[in-house]
Amino acid sequence: MAAARNILKFSRNAAFGVATFMLLAASAFAQTDPLPSWNDTAAKSSIVAFVEKVTKQNTTDFVPESDRIAVFDNDGTLWSEQPMYVQLAFALDRVKTMAPEHPEWKDTQPFKAVLEGDLKTLAAAGEKGLMEILMTTHSGMSSDEFLKITTDWIASARDPKFKKPYTELVYQPMIEVMQYLRNNGFKTFIVSGGGVEFMRPWTEKVYGIPPEQVIGSSIKTQFEMVGDVPTLRRLPEVNFIDDKAGKPVGINEKIGRRPIAAFGNSDGDLEMLQWTTMGGTTPRFGLIVHHTDAEREYAYDRETQFGKLDKALDAAPINGWTVVDMKADWKQIFPDK
Amino acid sequence: MAAARNILKFSRNAAFGVATFMLLAASAFAQTDPLPSWNDTAAKSSIVAFVEKVTKQNTTDFVPESDRIAVFDNDGTLWSEQPMYVQLAFALDRVKTMAPEHPEWKDTQPFKAVLEGDLKTLAAAGEKGLMEILMTTHSGMSSDEFLKITTDWIASARDPKFKKPYTELVYQPMIEVMQYLRNNGFKTFIVSGGGVEFMRPWTEKVYGIPPEQVIGSSIKTQFEMVGDVPTLRRLPEVNFIDDKAGKPVGINEKIGRRPIAAFGNSDGDLEMLQWTTMGGTTPRFGLIVHHTDAEREYAYDRETQFGKLDKALDAAPINGWTVVDMKADWKQIFPDK
Repeated sequence: MAAARNILKFSRNAAFGVATFMLLAASAFAQTDPLPSWNDTAAKSSIVAFVEKVTKQNTTDFVPESDRIAVFDNDGTLWSEQPMYVQLAFALDRVKTMAPEHPEWKDTQPFKAVLEGDLKTLAAAGEKGLMEILMTTHSGMSSDEFLKITTDWIASARDPKFKKPYTELVYQPMIEVMQYLRNNGFKTFIVSGGGVEFMRPWTEKVYGIPPEQVIGSSIKTQFEMVGDVPTLRRLPEVNFIDDKAGKPVGINEKIGRRPIAAFGNSDGDLEMLQWTTMGGTTPRFGLIVHHTDAEREYAYDRETQFGKLDKALDAAPINGWTVVDMKADWKQIFPDK
Repeated sequence: MAAARNILKFSRNAAFGVATFMLLAASAFAQTDPLPSWNDTAAKSSIVAFVEKVTKQNTTDFVPESDRIAVFDNDGTLWSEQPMYVQLAFALDRVKTMAPEHPEWKDTQPFKAVLEGDLKTLAAAGEKGLMEILMTTHSGMSSDEFLKITTDWIASARDPKFKKPYTELVYQPMIEVMQYLRNNGFKTFIVSGGGVEFMRPWTEKVYGIPPEQVIGSSIKTQFEMVGDVPTLRRLPEVNFIDDKAGKPVGINEKIGRRPIAAFGNSDGDLEMLQWTTMGGTTPRFGLIVHHTDAEREYAYDRETQFGKLDKALDAAPINGWTVVDMKADWKQIFPDK
C-alpha cells in the first residue's frame, strides 16, 4: 500500500512536472521572436497578424496547411539586385571565360563591349544584345555541365561593392520570414524572373527551398541519348519568361494552386501580387520590399535599370499590401557571417 | 528511502514497459506487409529490395531523403487507359455538352463523328482531328472555370466497362507502392502525358499527391485583369507535351533533380525510364506495368491505340527494369470500395 501510494504520488509529481515543463516551454516559444531582424514597426506586425489569423483553428479566417502557399520573388526580394542582376554578372564573367575560344568577339558587339568593360555600349545594345549574351553563355552544354558551371561560379564570385559571395548578400529578415512561414505550415516557393537552373544549385542551402519549389525563367532543353548516356542539351531558345504576367502563369502551371501570400519588390511582381491577393475567399497577404537604405544596401525605386518599382508601389496602398521600408523596418540587412 | 527505492523501482518498471512496447511495435511494423495487394513474386521483391538498399544508412548505396525522388506515369500506370484515355472520354463528353451552342457541329468533322458516336470516323481524323477536339473543349474559359468543369465531370462520369467512377479504377498495388515510398522518405510525383489541370483536381485525394507534384501536358494560359478580378484565360494553343522525350524535359524543368525511381507502362515512358535509371551513381529503379489481365482489366502491349508498349518492353531486360505481369503479380487490381 505504501508502495502504491508512493507510485501514485510519484505519478502525480511527474505529471505536475511535465505540465509545468510544457507550460514553460510554450511560454518560452511564444516569447521567442520569430523575426528578430525586424524592428517592431507596422511591417512586422502585419506579417505576424496574417500568420496568426490564418493558423487560428475554428475561425472563418483559418486556412488548412495544404493551402498555405507562399511565393517569393528572388532578385531584390531575397538578395541584392544592384549594381546588376547577379545572373547578368555571371553571364558577363562567362563571356570573359569563353573569350579565348571566340577570338572574333574582340570585334563583335555586344561581346566586344563586355570584354572591354564598356557597360554603356552594352546597355545601348538593349534587350536584343542582352539576350544574345544570355543565350551564348547559358546554352550549348548539357544540364549537368551547366550545373557544374553555375555551382563553381557562385562559390567563387564576389559582389563588387561588399566583396562577399552573392549568397551572403541575402536578406536576413526575409530568411526569417520564410522560416517563420514554414514553421507555421506554409510551403515556400521562389517565383523569379531569373533562370531556374541558375538558382537551384544554391537555394536549398541558402533559403531552405528545395529545387522543386523554385520556379523561374528557362531556355528550351532537348533530351537525347549520347551513346548510353541520357542527356538534356540546353538550346539557345527561350522556353518561358517567368516575369510580370508570366508569374501567375508559372505559378498556375507549376504549383497548381493559388498562393495566399506573395513577396516581391518590383513591377515584375505586380501581377503575382494581384493573382495572390485579389479575389480570394480567405485572407491574403502581399508585401513589397522597398529599397530605401543607400547606406547599408541601395536606395532605388521608380528610376532604375534593375528592379524598377513604380506601378506596384502605387498599387500597394490600394490593395493593402505591406511596403517594407528597408531602412526603418530592418534591424539588419545581411546575415551575420 | 523506501519511497526513493519505490520510485526507482517504478521508473525501472516503466522503462521496461516502454522498451517492451517499442520492441513489440517495431516488430509489428516490420511484419506488416507494405504491399499487401502484390503476390510474393520477383516484381514485389525487386521493389522492396531497392527501397531497403537506398534507405540503409552507412552503406555506399544509401541515398539521402532529399534525393529520393520517384516519378509515376498516370494513364495505364496508376489507372486504366482503355478503351480510351479518360481525358479523351472527358473531351468527347464535353463536345456533347457544348453541342447545343454549336449547331454547326452537326455537319462539321470531327465534331459530327463525336456527336454520332462514330469512333471510326473520329480515329480517321487522326491527330489533327483529336487536337481540334482537345483545344475546343479545353480552352476558352478561365482556369477556375475549367477546375469546376473537370471536378464536376470526374465526380459524375462512369467507365463504360466497369460502370464505376474513373477514380475508383486506380491500381491498388500502385497506390501501395506510392505510400510505401513516401513512408520511406521518398517524394512522389506524377509525370503524365495527360493535361496537368485535368489531373490536379483529384490526384491528392486519390493518390496522395498534391497539385505541385503533378507534372503534365498543358495549354498556354494568359493572365489578365477582368475588372478587379485577376484571371488566367486558357488559350487554344499547346504549351508543353509531357510525353516521350518531353518527360525528362518536364522533370528537369519542374522538379530540377534526377529521380532515382520511375514507373511507367508504355513507350511514352521510355525516355523517362532512361533518364531516371541510366548513368546515375546511386542505385536506380525502373518499372513497367505490363497489362496482361484481360479478365480483371485489359491485356495489350505492342498493338494498341492507347498505351502502346513495344520499344520500352524490349529495353526492359537490357536495362534491368522490373516488368510487372499484372495477372501474375497483382493479387488485386482496384481498391475494395
